[in-house]
Amino acid sequence: MAGNTIGKLFTVTSFGESHGPALGCIVDGCPPGMPLDVADLQRDLDRRKPGTSRYTTQRREADEVRILSGVFEGRTTGTSIGLLIENTDQRSKDYSDIAGTFRPAHADYTYQHKYGFRDYRGGGRSSARETAMRVAAGAIARKYLRERYGIQVRGYLAQLGPVKAQVLDWSVVEQNPFFCPDPGKIAAMEDYMAALNKRGDSIGARINVVASGLMPGLGEPVFDRLDADIAHAMMSINAVKGVEIGAGFAVVEQSGSEHRDLLTPEGFSGNNAGGILGGISSGQDITVSLALKPTSSIRQPGATIDTAGDAMEMSTHGRHDPCVGIRATPIAEAMLAIVLMDHVLRHRGQNMDVNCTTPVLPAAVEPDRAAKGVS
Amino acid sequence: MAGNTIGKLFTVTSFGESHGPALGCIVDGCPPGMPLDVADLQRDLDRRKPGTSRYTTQRREADEVRILSGVFEGRTTGTSIGLLIENTDQRSKDYSDIAGTFRPAHADYTYQHKYGFRDYRGGGRSSARETAMRVAAGAIARKYLRERYGIQVRGYLAQLGPVKAQVLDWSVVEQNPFFCPDPGKIAAMEDYMAALNKRGDSIGARINVVASGLMPGLGEPVFDRLDADIAHAMMSINAVKGVEIGAGFAVVEQSGSEHRDLLTPEGFSGNNAGGILGGISSGQDITVSLALKPTSSIRQPGATIDTAGDAMEMSTHGRHDPCVGIRATPIAEAMLAIVLMDHVLRHRGQNMDVNCTTPVLPAAVEPDRAAKGVS
Amino acid sequence: MAGNTIGKLFTVTSFGESHGPALGCIVDGCPPGMPLDVADLQRDLDRRKPGTSRYTTQRREADEVRILSGVFEGRTTGTSIGLLIENTDQRSKDYSDIAGTFRPAHADYTYQHKYGFRDYRGGGRSSARETAMRVAAGAIARKYLRERYGIQVRGYLAQLGPVKAQVLDWSVVEQNPFFCPDPGKIAAMEDYMAALNKRGDSIGARINVVASGLMPGLGEPVFDRLDADIAHAMMSINAVKGVEIGAGFAVVEQSGSEHRDLLTPEGFSGNNAGGILGGISSGQDITVSLALKPTSSIRQPGATIDTAGDAMEMSTHGRHDPCVGIRATPIAEAMLAIVLMDHVLRHRGQNMDVNCTTPVLPAAVEPDRAAKGVS
Amino acid sequence: MAGNTIGKLFTVTSFGESHGPALGCIVDGCPPGMPLDVADLQRDLDRRKPGTSRYTTQRREADEVRILSGVFEGRTTGTSIGLLIENTDQRSKDYSDIAGTFRPAHADYTYQHKYGFRDYRGGGRSSARETAMRVAAGAIARKYLRERYGIQVRGYLAQLGPVKAQVLDWSVVEQNPFFCPDPGKIAAMEDYMAALNKRGDSIGARINVVASGLMPGLGEPVFDRLDADIAHAMMSINAVKGVEIGAGFAVVEQSGSEHRDLLTPEGFSGNNAGGILGGISSGQDITVSLALKPTSSIRQPGATIDTAGDAMEMSTHGRHDPCVGIRATPIAEAMLAIVLMDHVLRHRGQNMDVNCTTPVLPAAVEPDRAAKGVS
Repeated sequence: MAGNTIGKLFTVTSFGESHGPALGCIVDGCPPGMPLDVADLQRDLDRRKPGTSRYTTQRREADEVRILSGVFEGRTTGTSIGLLIENTDQRSKDYSDIAGTFRPAHADYTYQHKYGFRDYRGGGRSSARETAMRVAAGAIARKYLRERYGIQVRGYLAQLGPVKAQVLDWSVVEQNPFFCPDPGKIAAMEDYMAALNKRGDSIGARINVVASGLMPGLGEPVFDRLDADIAHAMMSINAVKGVEIGAGFAVVEQSGSEHRDLLTPEGFSGNNAGGILGGISSGQDITVSLALKPTSSIRQPGATIDTAGDAMEMSTHGRHDPCVGIRATPIAEAMLAIVLMDHVLRHRGQNMDVNCTTPVLPAAVEPDRAAKGVS
Repeated sequence: MAGNTIGKLFTVTSFGESHGPALGCIVDGCPPGMPLDVADLQRDLDRRKPGTSRYTTQRREADEVRILSGVFEGRTTGTSIGLLIENTDQRSKDYSDIAGTFRPAHADYTYQHKYGFRDYRGGGRSSARETAMRVAAGAIARKYLRERYGIQVRGYLAQLGPVKAQVLDWSVVEQNPFFCPDPGKIAAMEDYMAALNKRGDSIGARINVVASGLMPGLGEPVFDRLDADIAHAMMSINAVKGVEIGAGFAVVEQSGSEHRDLLTPEGFSGNNAGGILGGISSGQDITVSLALKPTSSIRQPGATIDTAGDAMEMSTHGRHDPCVGIRATPIAEAMLAIVLMDHVLRHRGQNMDVNCTTPVLPAAVEPDRAAKGVS
Repeated sequence: MAGNTIGKLFTVTSFGESHGPALGCIVDGCPPGMPLDVADLQRDLDRRKPGTSRYTTQRREADEVRILSGVFEGRTTGTSIGLLIENTDQRSKDYSDIAGTFRPAHADYTYQHKYGFRDYRGGGRSSARETAMRVAAGAIARKYLRERYGIQVRGYLAQLGPVKAQVLDWSVVEQNPFFCPDPGKIAAMEDYMAALNKRGDSIGARINVVASGLMPGLGEPVFDRLDADIAHAMMSINAVKGVEIGAGFAVVEQSGSEHRDLLTPEGFSGNNAGGILGGISSGQDITVSLALKPTSSIRQPGATIDTAGDAMEMSTHGRHDPCVGIRATPIAEAMLAIVLMDHVLRHRGQNMDVNCTTPVLPAAVEPDRAAKGVS
Repeated sequence: MAGNTIGKLFTVTSFGESHGPALGCIVDGCPPGMPLDVADLQRDLDRRKPGTSRYTTQRREADEVRILSGVFEGRTTGTSIGLLIENTDQRSKDYSDIAGTFRPAHADYTYQHKYGFRDYRGGGRSSARETAMRVAAGAIARKYLRERYGIQVRGYLAQLGPVKAQVLDWSVVEQNPFFCPDPGKIAAMEDYMAALNKRGDSIGARINVVASGLMPGLGEPVFDRLDADIAHAMMSINAVKGVEIGAGFAVVEQSGSEHRDLLTPEGFSGNNAGGILGGISSGQDITVSLALKPTSSIRQPGATIDTAGDAMEMSTHGRHDPCVGIRATPIAEAMLAIVLMDHVLRHRGQNMDVNCTTPVLPAAVEPDRAAKGVS
């Protein structure tokens, strides 16, 4: 299928440019009968929305979503769900100066070469604005997973540049503009952002996402492993440069005796596996960690070339997030929910008759690594 | 599609269990007219083959591949290519003791729950033996990319447990059993493996893969980004727990002014992007880094449960790789080649008429980060 | 993919119910650089639009389409194209009486069983209203095929109940409300429809569609044959119960010596094949014929059951087409264009380097069977 | 996906040329736990096998299938099933004379243009030999449908050239080499074939296939309708030029009052719909009818061109079926089973929780049209 669709049974297909009239997506394959209204989507959209704190872009988008189909008398019908968000704060003039140049570390150069020309207004299709539809679609998946199976998907900012969260307190995550889980680090993040803003630079971040309450059995050998599909979904988010499952890159220096999560009648002894063995969920928490690069749109001037290939210098003065990671938590949650939802449906399709002959282990509490970057 | 297929236009669909009669795959979508014979596949298969050094499993498989279709008079016909490798060294008795238990950190537990029962002989479908077909299929993609476009795909072992390669000398990579690019570290790797073997343990590794000579334009916004599809392909390899593109997790602490690769008429100033911007290839080298977990089959005993849920202890005495990373380089190369091949065909399908109005930048030499883990 | 997507490289994904707020679709994979504006789509939409003659439903929909993305400065960008049509003439009250019953020969019964409940307003997703988006998306494909390759896709009504067109005069097709190609039969069709209306009944029809000017080589062995994908696309149109390629069902009584189209240096001697051999286009005209069932919504009362399973009688007094075939010509053209477009892109992806060593035959004029049903 | 795969959740991917070393396929997505051995496949393969009567090609292929994976201890494991048939009776010399020419009405001309060259031995990939793998894969689907749901898929030859079956006696179908359901017509078919053979010609045929015992609810709006996917699968069979569902092309002249199948508490009043309403199964029998063209390989000489484009004459003296329809019944059954299986899994994935609030109607006996062509 063409590149704007994700999923096999539960699919999301999206469209929309940063400065076009609207963004939209089609969610196909949702089971029928689930209560759904706009408020179910708006909560997550508001969490992602720009302009809600001084640490994110001041571009203001209402991000009000409309449900255009697939819901009747308050319930999903099983047919495709059309979602639409009109763009309201476009200010195309902000971007007219970039028509003839390539912003460093943006997609300008690559879109130009792929397609021969490009919608240069605010990055067009390559803008992070596109992620609004991921969040809207993901909210449908999250709701189903939660209501039907008790599966919970949630994330947090584990690290902002040099500032690492060291405590995971879920109750704090939604109470600060960073999605930071460590109440003792919020002030440090605020200070860091203020200094960053002063020098006109940007910074990277690490986001962790956790899914709890899963059944074992999700994931398809050998290419559509659950972890492979999660890696695909996460790496498809703008600015993501790395994905880890469970212990992630720490495994390079782990020995087998250290890495392996032993099985006991009380549950697994740890979760280095991140909840996935052989590409299939084990029932433990699925733990995913992402690296997001710093925004390339910064005030500090940098060398580049114009579309004729000549050298020039540019700096960016538009309204940009100095740390795209700050708003990425709801996006990462949405992508994980979409992947899990797709695999729940695929698993049911093939294996709904399986009578597991073995009792499912409890998902043990793992003191060793509840969250990456939380030392 | 079901889970044993990867790709959209250039697809690989595989089958086969560790101890079944044979492994096979179907490569579909290969352009016609390319010279192809068994020797083209066998070279990479031999690089992956077990039993070729004392650092890998002593299980001996000839891994002789047959081409059953899709090639006529020495050239690909454009129709589907059937490949087959008969299993010759099976020794099923080695594995009969694991029928009633779950080996820790293996897929035994999850396959059992997904399907209700499992082929317990050597891991069945979850065995790394399955990767032989990836290598065979990948060799077809590599050949086409190289001969038609001059694209080169190659990899190396960047780190084995604590031993890091610090020099990247491509001429050394194929001259040692580790695919190590640093001639000064080979002895250290040998020593490390000997000590590891003595204590009956295993170790993780980091593999780097690089594709050079690409055209810009490969990759599809927004979900089938090139990096997203690479992440999917890499994470689908057994034992992989992390994937990085370009600077990878280092971006978490990078500032924008540090991270961004500037454009100059002579080329990019660096390659923190790993050759991909906005999900689309820029023409620079694509750099990918993988973390492979230590083999879980070790001699050191560990707690587990049997299929009735009761506690027991087990240790593994079969023929296993103490470091699966050692043989993973050809597999990672194959997966990268398969993804690139698929995207070359997809790009041609949509964009073959594009006249790029901008000269393509030379892929600058980047002294700063030719290879991750090579400091 | 879920069921609301068609195509592999050029894909159309749609949503929308008859009486919901809007219909929409996403066209993905369109090559960049093609001039496109709303007028390009509106022409075909207007040809399909209800309420334009007294022979179709009097429901009046403006069917004004908006292009929401994928077009910049008047040209396609290569990214996904979002299309939207707001529903304006809904009159939901017309349909409230069918909530508790199953209209005979409609999808009411099957949707209810598949999903557990249904959007009963005007058939919801099963309404022929959904075909508006097919026509909009198809117009994009038609434009590309025509402008890039000179491929022409056009259709006509070959038979309306007992009234068969016997002359194929393309210049007449767009000049009458039936898309009838035989000027001598238009009056007979008018009379037939008037009588039909009087007795409150409906009638079936046959539509023929022809694609001319194709290159040989479109179609993929063995499952995605061009004719197989055409059959899929055509049978996916509401009310279609039969599809023929070339000689169609007449082949049952043909001998091989009669059926085979001989090759001569001047071209093929006939076109029983309908332009497709072995699932691949030959360069001759592709000829497709469809059977459309009579509308089931008729004034004549008929037995049915309510949702409790009890017997009842119903007749339909809404605004319905007495012959859905009359408006089906633009829909069938659109579907053929979508399939051809997808196969053009797929063919280019795999085979763009092929140098055919054999001159392509001229697509000979075939006096024997320019059009089915046109004796 | 590339063209040699069919299905979405239950997929079949095949390879193999008429005169290559082997044919094979991979069946992916089969539910685990179903007893399966070679005999389950061989029965249908033997029904399709050439050389079993004097009315089919005298080429003799053992068509002995091997199961290479996906079955353990006699049951399907849920992983991909590899199937292989070695070609044993190839006689490539029979075909060497066609290397430089295009056989009329064969795929020679189109393969040559698509791929630039072709495997000319016996048609290569375009040979009907490829259908052996469809039958093998279809046998797996049939077994599951029958054993899990009581669904029965069976077919028969409804018409051989001018000779029409007029009685449908299922007990006769497997007792004659034609799969003819009318005991009174077998002698006429024998006579017809003898005369045909004498004059060196071939003839077309009509095959009907029926699926009984289905649940309502199979099929996905709007593009992957059940009838659309059936049409795709049937038209993908070599030589098929037309597909009908239910009343098929007869609907062109039907009025709505005549066509509509009324619902009564005792069941539907007829089955003009062929068991599918709005693209979704109703629970009635699914009835499909196919037209197969006459073999183009006949002894009667005919004009053609060589690969240089020059006129020549050719006649075919190889071992060919004078009526491909005779052996097509098991193939058509297999394709219907594959489509139904795929849709059963897709339906379960999305809708396994649906509690139908309406009792399912009995699938009424329909005296009016149990079988097309059986008057």
